[in-house]
Amino acid sequence: MPAPPSACRTASSWCCSDCCRWRSAISAWRCGGGRGRHGGRCGIEVTALDALLRWLDLAGIAVFAASGALVASRKRMDAVGFILIAAVTGFGGGTLRDLLLGRTPPFWLRDPTWLAVASSVAVAVFFTAHRIESRFRALLWADAVGLALFAVLGAEIALLAGARPWAAVLLGVVTATFGGVARDVICNEIPLLLRKEIYALAALAGAAVYVLLRVEGVWRDPALLAGMAVAFGIRAVAIRRGWSLPAYRPRLGRDYPDR
Amino acid sequence: MPAPPSACRTASSWCCSDCCRWRSAISAWRCGGGRGRHGGRCGIEVTALDALLRWLDLAGIAVFAASGALVASRKRMDAVGFILIAAVTGFGGGTLRDLLLGRTPPFWLRDPTWLAVASSVAVAVFFTAHRIESRFRALLWADAVGLALFAVLGAEIALLAGARPWAAVLLGVVTATFGGVARDVICNEIPLLLRKEIYALAALAGAAVYVLLRVEGVWRDPALLAGMAVAFGIRAVAIRRGWSLPAYRPRLGRDYPDR
Amino acid sequence: MPAPPSACRTASSWCCSDCCRWRSAISAWRCGGGRGRHGGRCGIEVTALDALLRWLDLAGIAVFAASGALVASRKRMDAVGFILIAAVTGFGGGTLRDLLLGRTPPFWLRDPTWLAVASSVAVAVFFTAHRIESRFRALLWADAVGLALFAVLGAEIALLAGARPWAAVLLGVVTATFGGVARDVICNEIPLLLRKEIYALAALAGAAVYVLLRVEGVWRDPALLAGMAVAFGIRAVAIRRGWSLPAYRPRLGRDYPDR
Repeated sequence: MPAPPSACRTASSWCCSDCCRWRSAISAWRCGGGRGRHGGRCGIEVTALDALLRWLDLAGIAVFAASGALVASRKRMDAVGFILIAAVTGFGGGTLRDLLLGRTPPFWLRDPTWLAVASSVAVAVFFTAHRIESRFRALLWADAVGLALFAVLGAEIALLAGARPWAAVLLGVVTATFGGVARDVICNEIPLLLRKEIYALAALAGAAVYVLLRVEGVWRDPALLAGMAVAFGIRAVAIRRGWSLPAYRPRLGRDYPDR
Repeated sequence: MPAPPSACRTASSWCCSDCCRWRSAISAWRCGGGRGRHGGRCGIEVTALDALLRWLDLAGIAVFAASGALVASRKRMDAVGFILIAAVTGFGGGTLRDLLLGRTPPFWLRDPTWLAVASSVAVAVFFTAHRIESRFRALLWADAVGLALFAVLGAEIALLAGARPWAAVLLGVVTATFGGVARDVICNEIPLLLRKEIYALAALAGAAVYVLLRVEGVWRDPALLAGMAVAFGIRAVAIRRGWSLPAYRPRLGRDYPDR
Repeated sequence: MPAPPSACRTASSWCCSDCCRWRSAISAWRCGGGRGRHGGRCGIEVTALDALLRWLDLAGIAVFAASGALVASRKRMDAVGFILIAAVTGFGGGTLRDLLLGRTPPFWLRDPTWLAVASSVAVAVFFTAHRIESRFRALLWADAVGLALFAVLGAEIALLAGARPWAAVLLGVVTATFGGVARDVICNEIPLLLRKEIYALAALAGAAVYVLLRVEGVWRDPALLAGMAVAFGIRAVAIRRGWSLPAYRPRLGRDYPDR
């Protein structure tokens, strides 16, 4: 995997020059657009896939924010609560990844776009959640898209930050899942991903495929597509067929004391 | 807004020289006093307002610690639990802010004063919580003071760390609210601020007013006072009149499956 | 206490050269072995105690992971949930310590050994938890070993990172206890250590003894042993005799409103 140019490694964290460092679609968007503003400085071609990824990434934030707002609606929070939970769900995974990698401040403090998207979604859900019943299944599917996207993009960011391949896979899983865990913990529920559905496993598979392909020298774009396809495919099958991993079942005679 | 002198930006994080970097009352206190020890080096005048702010800041920690200890008393924890919850409530917001800004170690690991204050308050509550009933309303008001103070001071620290204005406002809100959220999450309650009262909104308004005034070139001291007045005023009205934002109310026919 | 050589302070975070910086048994293990790979460069003797500590440290991770997996079994999670909770319990304390110290990435992203151990333990518990009833008491004791070890090693790492003595003691307590708190919070339980048993206090005593001895000039190895002995001893007595600190008991007439 080619390392980013060394000049980029030392870029200041608050300015936009890390669109140069990360060289990824997601960062180019964060910095306010690719070729127009930074292309000349960074000399990075913005491909058609990059443009698509930007929108998918934004869609991922929006979808996770919507899932957070739906939980807020079940807890009967006010509008501020909706926005806070939406932001926690949408930004949580990327924030923990950035903290673990030592990338501060995290992405949502560098560009207000993310916050604007999450807030808008939260407000929209606040006024329409009673009609969303019929769209719940659609939300599940969109959530699967977000999961696939964040697992792969999280792994990519970790790789570019110098993480070894297995660590990059882990960080992809963290990026894709921690937002939902934080949402459930704050709302006082046991994270459902931990006991019901194939969720973390799909993120793990997608991130692993992406990292494996990159380590083997495959170009970024096909590797991204393959990783996302694997993650989304596994999650899709799990949703359609109701697949889940076997949960632990207690047996007779096991009743150890509280711990 | 004038940037801090560049020499200060590289100050080592464990030593006290960041009283130079932050140039704020809160830091001067943390470093053990203003003009006496560091004034000569930093050339910063310690104004009367600075001295007042030091005490208010300490009062803020104390009040948040007391609210944490009160929750601990409802959960019937032991004295160590009281201290831990008090520390989490008092330090949580500032710690998350410092982690997001990349300022490590956080403030409470640099000066033992904070821990001493939080512990003393926790122990005091442990022995007097049964008498505090009549003081509950007083606590609410003191808590509002802490909220106002931390929102504005958190935004100031973020500004001095180089955050853009909107990011500084967000970090002010994080500073003022995260301690209470962490307290409620650890104690297994849904954070009440998320569903009942105007709380985060007051912090947001105060931090926004402060940052706006600073960006417009207003001096620090009047801007601090104005920001705190706005945050405290909104919170005060909310307490007095029982104001709250409209919470989400479910309508008939909305009963989507568990997620 | 002698400071680490200054060249070590600037070592890059992803590579193994911080076995040089930390000069501790735990780091030598993390870097894949002491004298063989790094001894020549760092000039650190690996003593017999170092070798023992490596295994104890690994045992600590394993035991905390097992306690996490046991909680997962009570919540009837699937195998992935077992692994996630085991990892959170085993790595949580060290991760928070590393984040607070600004040491990124945290240890478990630098060497896959830790993850392999935690995962293996989680899978083993998944298949054997119904038989573990009779071993619950053994687990309690092993957990006490982990507590003692992590409190002292966490304090050591903080000292070497430049923390002042009282801050190092705090970070030792954080290292020893936060994993269990995160486990309970994610599983939606009130952290039991906060209300039932002498737990945090044992970690505090052990870390304090270690740091005190080090500050007084005692060598590392006897100080480590003394600190661990104190922490384990206090915890052992608490388990054997059912000692606990007096919890707060509500009195008549105290019924303040919800907050």
